[in-house]
Amino acid sequence: MRDAADLSPLDPFETPVAVLDVGRARRNADRAADYCRRHGLAWRPHVKTHKSLEVARIQLEAGAAGLTVATPREAEVMSAVADDLLLAYPPIGPSKLQRLMGLPRTVRLTVGLDSEAALGPLAEASRAAGRQTGLLVEVDAGLGRVGVGTPEEAVALARSAAERDGAAFRGIMFYPGHLRVPESEQESGLADLSRLVDRYIGALSDAGLEPEVVSGGSTPTLWQTHRVPGVTEVRPGTCIYNDRDILGMGACAPEDLAYTVLATVVSTAVPGQAVVDAGSKALAKEPPLPTLPGFGALLARPEVWVRALSEEHGVLDLSETAWRPSVGERVRIVPNHVCVSVNLQDHVLALSDGGATAWRLDGRGRGPYHSGPSA
Amino acid sequence: MRDAADLSPLDPFETPVAVLDVGRARRNADRAADYCRRHGLAWRPHVKTHKSLEVARIQLEAGAAGLTVATPREAEVMSAVADDLLLAYPPIGPSKLQRLMGLPRTVRLTVGLDSEAALGPLAEASRAAGRQTGLLVEVDAGLGRVGVGTPEEAVALARSAAERDGAAFRGIMFYPGHLRVPESEQESGLADLSRLVDRYIGALSDAGLEPEVVSGGSTPTLWQTHRVPGVTEVRPGTCIYNDRDILGMGACAPEDLAYTVLATVVSTAVPGQAVVDAGSKALAKEPPLPTLPGFGALLARPEVWVRALSEEHGVLDLSETAWRPSVGERVRIVPNHVCVSVNLQDHVLALSDGGATAWRLDGRGRGPYHSGPSA
Repeated sequence: MRDAADLSPLDPFETPVAVLDVGRARRNADRAADYCRRHGLAWRPHVKTHKSLEVARIQLEAGAAGLTVATPREAEVMSAVADDLLLAYPPIGPSKLQRLMGLPRTVRLTVGLDSEAALGPLAEASRAAGRQTGLLVEVDAGLGRVGVGTPEEAVALARSAAERDGAAFRGIMFYPGHLRVPESEQESGLADLSRLVDRYIGALSDAGLEPEVVSGGSTPTLWQTHRVPGVTEVRPGTCIYNDRDILGMGACAPEDLAYTVLATVVSTAVPGQAVVDAGSKALAKEPPLPTLPGFGALLARPEVWVRALSEEHGVLDLSETAWRPSVGERVRIVPNHVCVSVNLQDHVLALSDGGATAWRLDGRGRGPYHSGPSA
Repeated sequence: MRDAADLSPLDPFETPVAVLDVGRARRNADRAADYCRRHGLAWRPHVKTHKSLEVARIQLEAGAAGLTVATPREAEVMSAVADDLLLAYPPIGPSKLQRLMGLPRTVRLTVGLDSEAALGPLAEASRAAGRQTGLLVEVDAGLGRVGVGTPEEAVALARSAAERDGAAFRGIMFYPGHLRVPESEQESGLADLSRLVDRYIGALSDAGLEPEVVSGGSTPTLWQTHRVPGVTEVRPGTCIYNDRDILGMGACAPEDLAYTVLATVVSTAVPGQAVVDAGSKALAKEPPLPTLPGFGALLARPEVWVRALSEEHGVLDLSETAWRPSVGERVRIVPNHVCVSVNLQDHVLALSDGGATAWRLDGRGRGPYHSGPSA
């Protein structure tokens, strides 16, 4: 697959810099929205992937029912374009609670959490602020990261929320991050997940706490969500951009890759390789999937992969290509994991027929980091 | 080793946030400066590790002869405190050259590179700007990343620099990043390196281009530099902070760890672990050393290590401790690779007897990313 796009609008920009193919992102948004419409699911994309108000607008225009956020910063920034936010993360500590309570009153806020220790202060802060915060009980669906482990615990937490001023029990959420295998191997994982979700819905309903929301979905499992009965909404992040991991799992096609890092060849001194100025501080050096060597690959030449990364050096492996670039040549690199590469940027260059425009990533960083008086 | 410091000044700050033990950083700076003074080496610390003007001032006050930078942004920021900068990276493309030529005229700039394609435009831009840029020929000392591979190539590039207006040949540089083994196993690597450096110095001297500067050194090899004859300066970055990798290599002691990420426990729902709010977007998820499991460890309880990282979740493994933290408890985490963790922060909290103060990391990011008219 060669890349036929007109890249000349990128010429004036210094590398390394992130580039967004806006047309591809719009198509990715439409595809997710269409899938959810067909299956009666609410689409609540996770903004952690893009951290951009402009990209959030694309998602909302395509039909997103609201947005998912991970941090107070993301919530604050996204409250400018969305009035229905899910913080899929327990807000622990006075500073985070204070920032959430400072969100515009027009924002309907829901929070996912898995403990009384998280619920109590949140409900109390909400009550004191004259707000009511929606609650989703986070359930461990098999990843073993966070989430209650039994329906009994979910019922206890849901009941506690239902009984508190300031909180309103809305349902459950889970993250099937352990299902990262090709579609053909997801069968047993999806069957297990369906049984687990059914058990939680049943226990809560029996207790008179029927969940209005059952929030699931990740990009690798997105297109299989309709096979898990009871799920009402999905929170995929990556599918707006996709990346080499998602491509390697078979959950997107090459033409769905919307995000790259534009880099310049800076050295060809060592034979058999070319070194570019996108290193781990532009691409992120996460451990690769077992099936994919290296830390990224060229968009236009996927047989050229990033064999090694230092902080400001990316080493392109040329063993499977006859292409021999010169110092100064520019390439676009697809990172393994797009969310962590985006988090390293201050801007993306939005490339469309209209040229290239820098979009600030306002959701990046932590924002105010201090709840007390100025130090 | 328990951590006895008074951490109460950190209480008002929201997590995750980077924390710098200023006393330890000062001691680390003094130790590097002392070593270099004893062995007649110039100490030119690499600011990529800390990206902070305040920390650069600590290094300069301790005796740094100048600073090493990797990006135009770092050069611009550090020109406020240092008038002798080495850009240890080839500046390719008009935007980077333009920014370098815009540095204050009081700055003595030296650049390391390995090709005519990098040298030509740099010399021409310098000539046109009425400047003279020093040149170090980068030599591949065995890492196989960048650098010329033979003394003949080094002589040719040095001669080309010497003959150009705008450039002044100053010497050679190398990065022994392949020597990351414990001191006891470095013998043969250091012997090979000494022979290689000697060969380059000899060839250049024979050609009438005796190098005034032979720039080497990394943190793992720093304290062995005197055993490589001919080296005149070192460019270690990490040794100002140190990290779990450096500790694991035996190149620092636990009490030399100056940088941590302060994090809060957000979930203990899954037995045998605790989840904190420092994930890969605060610690960086680089592949660990073969000898060290996980992605970091607690400063005060090194037997508690970060078993898994998602973007905003760090999973602490509790299998080797009786400690069972509660939601809301705070911990300080030593990352595997400090430079990439620092690059994820906008500030560090400088912790000293005087309390905690936020220092901006002005060198982070790319700064102006556009050499043309505004998009």
